[in-house]
Amino acid sequence: MKTDILVIGGSAAGLVSAMTAKSGYPEKEVTIIRKEEIVMIPCGIPYIFGSVKTSEKNILTDAGLKSMGVNIIIDEVIDINKENKTCKTKKGDLIEYDKLIITTGSQPVIPGWLHGKLLKNVFVIPKEKDYLDDFHKKLENLNNIVTVGAGFIGLEVSDELNKIGKKVTLVEILPRVLGLAFDEEFATEAELLLNERGVKINTGAGIKEILGKDKVEGVLLNSGEIIEADAVILSLGYVPNVELAKKAGLKLNEFGFIEVDQYRRTSVKDIFAAGDCSEKRDFSTGKLSKTMLASTACAEARVAAMNLYKLSTVKTFRGTIGIYFTAIGNTAFGVAGLNEAAASAEGFDIVTGSFTGIDRHPGKLDDAHKQTVKLIVSKENGLILGGEVLGGKSAGELTNVIGFMIQNNMTVNDVIVSQIGTHPMLTASPAGYPLIKAAEMVAKKLKS
Amino acid sequence: MKTDILVIGGSAAGLVSAMTAKSGYPEKEVTIIRKEEIVMIPCGIPYIFGSVKTSEKNILTDAGLKSMGVNIIIDEVIDINKENKTCKTKKGDLIEYDKLIITTGSQPVIPGWLHGKLLKNVFVIPKEKDYLDDFHKKLENLNNIVTVGAGFIGLEVSDELNKIGKKVTLVEILPRVLGLAFDEEFATEAELLLNERGVKINTGAGIKEILGKDKVEGVLLNSGEIIEADAVILSLGYVPNVELAKKAGLKLNEFGFIEVDQYRRTSVKDIFAAGDCSEKRDFSTGKLSKTMLASTACAEARVAAMNLYKLSTVKTFRGTIGIYFTAIGNTAFGVAGLNEAAASAEGFDIVTGSFTGIDRHPGKLDDAHKQTVKLIVSKENGLILGGEVLGGKSAGELTNVIGFMIQNNMTVNDVIVSQIGTHPMLTASPAGYPLIKAAEMVAKKLKS
Repeated sequence: MKTDILVIGGSAAGLVSAMTAKSGYPEKEVTIIRKEEIVMIPCGIPYIFGSVKTSEKNILTDAGLKSMGVNIIIDEVIDINKENKTCKTKKGDLIEYDKLIITTGSQPVIPGWLHGKLLKNVFVIPKEKDYLDDFHKKLENLNNIVTVGAGFIGLEVSDELNKIGKKVTLVEILPRVLGLAFDEEFATEAELLLNERGVKINTGAGIKEILGKDKVEGVLLNSGEIIEADAVILSLGYVPNVELAKKAGLKLNEFGFIEVDQYRRTSVKDIFAAGDCSEKRDFSTGKLSKTMLASTACAEARVAAMNLYKLSTVKTFRGTIGIYFTAIGNTAFGVAGLNEAAASAEGFDIVTGSFTGIDRHPGKLDDAHKQTVKLIVSKENGLILGGEVLGGKSAGELTNVIGFMIQNNMTVNDVIVSQIGTHPMLTASPAGYPLIKAAEMVAKKLKS
Repeated sequence: MKTDILVIGGSAAGLVSAMTAKSGYPEKEVTIIRKEEIVMIPCGIPYIFGSVKTSEKNILTDAGLKSMGVNIIIDEVIDINKENKTCKTKKGDLIEYDKLIITTGSQPVIPGWLHGKLLKNVFVIPKEKDYLDDFHKKLENLNNIVTVGAGFIGLEVSDELNKIGKKVTLVEILPRVLGLAFDEEFATEAELLLNERGVKINTGAGIKEILGKDKVEGVLLNSGEIIEADAVILSLGYVPNVELAKKAGLKLNEFGFIEVDQYRRTSVKDIFAAGDCSEKRDFSTGKLSKTMLASTACAEARVAAMNLYKLSTVKTFRGTIGIYFTAIGNTAFGVAGLNEAAASAEGFDIVTGSFTGIDRHPGKLDDAHKQTVKLIVSKENGLILGGEVLGGKSAGELTNVIGFMIQNNMTVNDVIVSQIGTHPMLTASPAGYPLIKAAEMVAKKLKS
């Protein structure tokens, strides 16, 4: 068969690439080819174990694709011929394309010392529905669980399993949970909350060995401690799926992501890449980044699809701002851009300001929640490099406000005189709005 | 007595003026003079009747002022001598100042045809605690209530009184509630919700006369209809408190606000003004505006206080972006900048895009709420002129995102390739984020 635009991969980046391409070039035939009959909402996966109960309620619908007239093929591309511009599929078909977008995503890291062998009842957290359903079913009879790796996914899965009554121990080699994403004061609060809710936390040692003969019996930590377990869930990050791209001769960067320019063009003409499999550069430093986020993937997908046939000077992607959120119960945590530790490590001369208020006013309202905002600012020119937020559920969108401040190169002085909207039932008070107060604290330090 | 910086008025603008002045010029003596012993949180006032139950839980605390060392005087300035730079007070004191900031606020409109006479059980909604407490107490025995004016305050008071079991009819002369702030589709949803919750709504006619001899018995509408009532609450807007400024010879603008420049300097040297009493210009049109918002007042107060002793080129105030929120139950409404009707009336050639999604993903999560975003965009250059949001409680901060887009002169193309953060428990999905989808719809219309 023949299609104008072929998208390989059906998760967030694939979906948005295909829809944006069809919307921008309605006269073109757009085809998406993916392995999975049913696609999971990637960031919803931790919640299938508790809050949403089943993977059936976490499905990325095809309705949008279908209503726009995008072709969907369930199959797998096993070979790309870049000269003939064709893709060979597992089922034996040959698809001719004019433009190709690779969105093959990522898969869970399995540490080298396991040599690819997972004992019975050792699980990872991929995005495949079949695996997840089997995993979920097996968990029914497994109660004593060790989760390894306290990044966002590990933390969320631990909290969800705890919520449904499992005994969960979260093991992390770093000194704190979410220790890469958040500065110490935020990470500590997350840890306290998680602990209060019943998740045991074991930080600083990390796992040395998974114990057991036929099936998991426990884990041995680097500290020598042994924790008994019926199941071990490894959540040690994700690696880009680039086998296909590599085989086709596309250049990979030193972290193993598909190399792209600011329009998401790969090293091969007419082939673009977006999402977890494709290269990212940090917005502030320009350095290669390993950020993997569905939201970033969608922004990249929009850029790729909009630049397929002609380049637009406005539709480029300067770099990735990691904007991460999570929630522990009713407490939300958000970070945008560089945190203090990361900014310092990069060599920025920084000033920070932090302010704690309440996300309703008056603060006596029923659903009021403490809200803390921290800003990380360049001493040289007052530029906002990053921010962290702890608060109620509106902390997510408030972190997006900080994301827009970073993307618009705002300085701390710009922020202080910015206009924000406030409402008793929805936000902090205008006089005590933590984002503005944190900016004032930074400005004061910059003056003195 | 003598003070370096004197602030007249103790509400949002006064508080923030004094705190910003003391923070920026710690060596200066800063004094705030206000009439009220206890200051109400202005936007919290509608909620004292229901959600927060008492004015005691809606107090703007003096703790910040006191901890910073700002003097507080409870008294009233009755005369400003601009040549001698002194203020005479009601209690007979004379205060010498070096810099003066006027933040005298606003008071409820009483329509001319009432000739200043309010029948027994006719109320307005000022910011004075004593009045509000008396009003609140009288309401205990009054059950059949007509509220007049369906702006934000009128709507919120109606909803709160309905919540505590009063029979409430909201009368509005315009065709819809919130009809000035929101476009038809949003206003209609607000009306439906309010109605579902039990508030009777009477739009399009407006009030002609308040009926009753000794006390209120009802209202006569322009349509001839009579509605019986034990109490009438007038919520017909606010007028700036400028008697003192006028007497002192400060220039007022054609709407009766104290004239100021972009640094909030009045026509008289060393006198600044901020908040409801002071002039505002619309961010997009540059025209005089009547916007009165505590959040705007706070931004103005920061600018005034930071420019007291030397002007800063970065700390100016280009113009007011009205950013209004309200909530009806769990549904929040937000608007930033110009709505479609206002932008058209101003003569902008506009394109709009609107998208409805869900503010969680998967949408099956318990607290998921429909979320609609509409963007109003200039056809000429794609500049974002305004936006409206309907959603769950995070719709407030999401509207602030739009506020930042407007303040940063972002175009619809900038928005489409913007990076946003998302999370299942906190926001819409990255592929179906209504703000970005609305921008895509506008971009598509602009292309065709």
